Amino acid sequence: MFIIGELINGMYQNIGNAIKEKNKAVIQKCALEQINAGAGALDVNCGPASKQPVSDIQWLVEAIQEVTDKTICLDSSKPQVIESGLKVIKNKVIINSTTADPEKLEKLIPLAKQYNAKLIALTISSKGIPQNKDQRLELAAMIVSACVDMGFSTEDLYLDPIAMPVKVAQAQEKDILEAIREFKVISEPSPKTVVGLSNVSQGSTSRSLINRNFLAMALGNGLDAAILDPLDKDLIDSAITTELILNKNIYCDSFLEAYRKK
Amino acid sequence: MFIIGELINGMYQNIGNAIKEKNKAVIQKCALEQINAGAGALDVNCGPASKQPVSDIQWLVEAIQEVTDKTICLDSSKPQVIESGLKVIKNKVIINSTTADPEKLEKLIPLAKQYNAKLIALTISSKGIPQNKDQRLELAAMIVSACVDMGFSTEDLYLDPIAMPVKVAQAQEKDILEAIREFKVISEPSPKTVVGLSNVSQGSTSRSLINRNFLAMALGNGLDAAILDPLDKDLIDSAITTELILNKNIYCDSFLEAYRKK
Repeated sequence: MFIIGELINGMYQNIGNAIKEKNKAVIQKCALEQINAGAGALDVNCGPASKQPVSDIQWLVEAIQEVTDKTICLDSSKPQVIESGLKVIKNKVIINSTTADPEKLEKLIPLAKQYNAKLIALTISSKGIPQNKDQRLELAAMIVSACVDMGFSTEDLYLDPIAMPVKVAQAQEKDILEAIREFKVISEPSPKTVVGLSNVSQGSTSRSLINRNFLAMALGNGLDAAILDPLDKDLIDSAITTELILNKNIYCDSFLEAYRKK
Repeated sequence: MFIIGELINGMYQNIGNAIKEKNKAVIQKCALEQINAGAGALDVNCGPASKQPVSDIQWLVEAIQEVTDKTICLDSSKPQVIESGLKVIKNKVIINSTTADPEKLEKLIPLAKQYNAKLIALTISSKGIPQNKDQRLELAAMIVSACVDMGFSTEDLYLDPIAMPVKVAQAQEKDILEAIREFKVISEPSPKTVVGLSNVSQGSTSRSLINRNFLAMALGNGLDAAILDPLDKDLIDSAITTELILNKNIYCDSFLEAYRKK
C-alpha cells in the first residue's frame, strides 16, 4: 500500500499555527516523522483557516522540499491553490483532488498532464455525495471517461470512493468497500484506488480500531493507497500484516521489523 | 459472526490432562469462559493423545451439557467419534467435519440429517489440500451437490476453505479469502462459510495480529462463522468493529461494550 501521510494539514492546531507564524521547523519535523513511519507521500493542505492558501501552499511545499524529495500530495478543493502549489513543485506530485464535475475535470486533468502529476479523483459531484455503490461507479466511469478523452493514463488516476464516517453513514460502508473492488475493473489498465481513511472514524470512539479494520477490508478489496496517520503504530502494524497475508511482502518471522527496515 | 470457541481441544495440555483425569471442572470452566467471551458454540475435540476418543467425546459432551445449553461442535476426522458424540447430544449440534470424499459425505450427511445437526465441510479430499481457488470451488461444488442429492439444506452447511498458515502457504491466502466470497454464490440458498482461524498464524510470531487481519478480510468477503479463541480480546474487538463497519450491528459510541452486553 502506498501511504500518504495526512498530518500536514492546517486544520491541526500545530500545523495551523506553524503556517500562520511561518515556522518551517514544525512542518519539516512533521514531514520527516511521517516519512520515517512509512509514508511514501505527504499530503499538504493549508486548512480552512488559511487566508492566503495560494501563497501558503507554496510556502509549505518549499519548506518540505528543503528536507525530503518524497512525493507531495497537493490537497485543496480550489484548483487555483493546486495550480499555485504546482508552480513550485520539484518533487513528484499528486493532485488531491478533482471531483466528477466537468469544469473541475477540464481544469485539473490538463494540469496533471502538464506537471506529470498523478491525480486523485473523488467520486462526488456538485449534486452531492453518492448514496450507494452504483452512484459511485457512475461517477467513477465519468471520471475515467474524461481521463481517456484527454489522454491521461488511468494508471496515474486514483479513484476515491469517499469513505464516509461509520457514525453517520454506517449502511454505506459495505458499498464503499465494494466500490473499491469494482473501480479496479472499470478500465484497462486499472485505475488505482485511494481512501481518506480517518474520515471513516470521524466523531467515533476507538478511532484507530475502526480505521484499521476498514483498511484491512479495503486492502482485501484491492485498495492501492490511503491517506492516513502514519504515526498510528497499531494502524501501520495492521496494514503491514494485511499486506503480508495478501502476499505483497515475503513472509519472515520478524515481518513487522523487516517491512519497516525496507 | 457466529463464534465457535476452539479451546476445548485435547491438544492443549490443560484439556488433555483434564480428559485423562476425567476432571469435569476444568472442562466446564473453559466452556463458560468461552461463552462469556462471546462464543455461540463450543468446539469439542479429544485431541491426538486420546486413546479412547469414542468414549472421551461422550464424557466431554456430557460435562459441557451440565453447565450450558449452547451449541456443541463435535470435532473429529473419525466418523465413529462424531457418531458417538451425537448419541449423547441434548444441545444443538454441529458436525465438524466431513471432507469432499464420497465415503465421508455418504456417512456424515445422513448423520447430520438424523440428528438435525449443521455440518462443517472442508474443501479437501483424500487427494490432498487444494492448491488454489479453483480447486477449492470444485470441491465445494462436489459437497454442495452431495447435500442437494441427499436432501440436506445448504443453509445448514458450513463450507471451510482450509485456512493455511501464512508461514507455509503465503501465496494461497488471497485465494482462500476469495474462495469464501465465491462459496456464497454456489447455491441458492447460499451455503454458510467458516474458517479455522488460528491455522492462519500457526508457527508465526504476532499470531493475534495475523488472525485478526485475516478475519477482517474474511468477514469483508462474507464469512459467517469462525472457530477461534474467544478469550483473545483484541481479536474479538476487531471482529466486533469489522461487523460494525459491515452494518451488522447498529452503531453507538460504546459499540464494543454494547455488543458484549448483547
